Amino acid sequence: MGVSILVTGGARSGKSTLAEGLALRLSPCPIYIATAEALDGEMAARIAAHRESRGAAWQTREVPLDLSDALADTDGGPARLVDCLTLWLSNLLHAGRDPAREGPRLAEAVAAQSAPVVLVTNEVGAGIVPENKLARRFRDEAGRLNQTVAARCDRVYLSVAGHPLQVKPGADIDL
Amino acid sequence: MGVSILVTGGARSGKSTLAEGLALRLSPCPIYIATAEALDGEMAARIAAHRESRGAAWQTREVPLDLSDALADTDGGPARLVDCLTLWLSNLLHAGRDPAREGPRLAEAVAAQSAPVVLVTNEVGAGIVPENKLARRFRDEAGRLNQTVAARCDRVYLSVAGHPLQVKPGADIDL
Amino acid sequence: MGVSILVTGGARSGKSTLAEGLALRLSPCPIYIATAEALDGEMAARIAAHRESRGAAWQTREVPLDLSDALADTDGGPARLVDCLTLWLSNLLHAGRDPAREGPRLAEAVAAQSAPVVLVTNEVGAGIVPENKLARRFRDEAGRLNQTVAARCDRVYLSVAGHPLQVKPGADIDL
Repeated sequence: MGVSILVTGGARSGKSTLAEGLALRLSPCPIYIATAEALDGEMAARIAAHRESRGAAWQTREVPLDLSDALADTDGGPARLVDCLTLWLSNLLHAGRDPAREGPRLAEAVAAQSAPVVLVTNEVGAGIVPENKLARRFRDEAGRLNQTVAARCDRVYLSVAGHPLQVKPGADIDL
Repeated sequence: MGVSILVTGGARSGKSTLAEGLALRLSPCPIYIATAEALDGEMAARIAAHRESRGAAWQTREVPLDLSDALADTDGGPARLVDCLTLWLSNLLHAGRDPAREGPRLAEAVAAQSAPVVLVTNEVGAGIVPENKLARRFRDEAGRLNQTVAARCDRVYLSVAGHPLQVKPGADIDL
Repeated sequence: MGVSILVTGGARSGKSTLAEGLALRLSPCPIYIATAEALDGEMAARIAAHRESRGAAWQTREVPLDLSDALADTDGGPARLVDCLTLWLSNLLHAGRDPAREGPRLAEAVAAQSAPVVLVTNEVGAGIVPENKLARRFRDEAGRLNQTVAARCDRVYLSVAGHPLQVKPGADIDL
């Protein structure tokens, strides 16, 4: 089986750069699977800046919704970098799909890959409880999705100021 | 003295599940001390879902305010799981009690237990400074409470995507 | 070269206390470089409480903007504690200065010091995406600044409930 790695962290914590470095160590020409869609100018600028910073080694696919299919389609080749699951979740909710079904399906797909896969996600639950009910739901769904995918990945890292803390596999807890 | 463990983490980071697992390893039939009160439908649904996921091994007590007394009353028996300190803080503030007095009192009670106790709390201070002054106060009080209780616990874990990072005891810092 | 240490963490996570302890272990009478300005009553109260909790061993300088100069001016003497970079960023933005220029300049200055320097910063990107566009920009700039400074520091710690997690140097990542 190919190694599967989840990289989580706050906004601008260096998680994409860390994940890109991991993917490039796994394959010289990895496949970048972008979940972002350029729906407004702010997002378009972010996507363009990300794409430029990655450089020419990468093949890019834009996959806003069907991540499990994209992993199956690209399996057997180079490492895949999926960036990011939080935007994917947002896309699922906008498209009326159920994260409670799609999250476990993705986790199964990740566990079944024979080529490596690195996934980026966000920590969104460590602030004050949002006043907005939709934001509270999103925060809950994002946390659940992170747990669901992390459970099927070989490794999980938390990025802090550009540096990785290894979360899984962790030390045994002795009581 | 019974072991005391604090589990902190963001929303839906898997901290309750982790804490429940720790409590069940300490005692086959632990006591669940819930600080939540079902004041609205959203909260009632969360409480019911939590209760169902725990299963039948657990005795449950609802203790919105008097945690120190509840620990004293249940000491000498099985492990206690207190879930969670952030809601307790909210209850204290609604009831007009002073967290600067109640926090240290709880920390002393935890340190004095002869049976094990596992406590769950939340990270609420890693987002943007809230515009709302009450939210800023709550965030400060929650951070202080976490520090106060952590100082008297034997172990502290940070839950990230369902996996524990051991925070205390930590490695020595050599300069 | 003097050791350089970055301490990050959420609000009230104990990062200032941790950083003060590190500075006092490096020098008996360290220099406190405060980036805070008492612009309103809430901030004045925070500054006064911080100053009182530090005690008499410290020399204090208030440096809202020119941190690189302040480090150069105080180099060759005792350890410096800079608290904190997030307020400094806010000061830069209010003064119309460009964080993309000032951040790397500070990082270079930190790397060039011959006396020790400890810097405190905040995790602000682990909550829900703010609705406010200025808050989103601040969150991005703060994350970038943390990465930029961390890259040139010898050590980075994440403070959680008063206890440090060592982020840098970290374990090697083997794939």
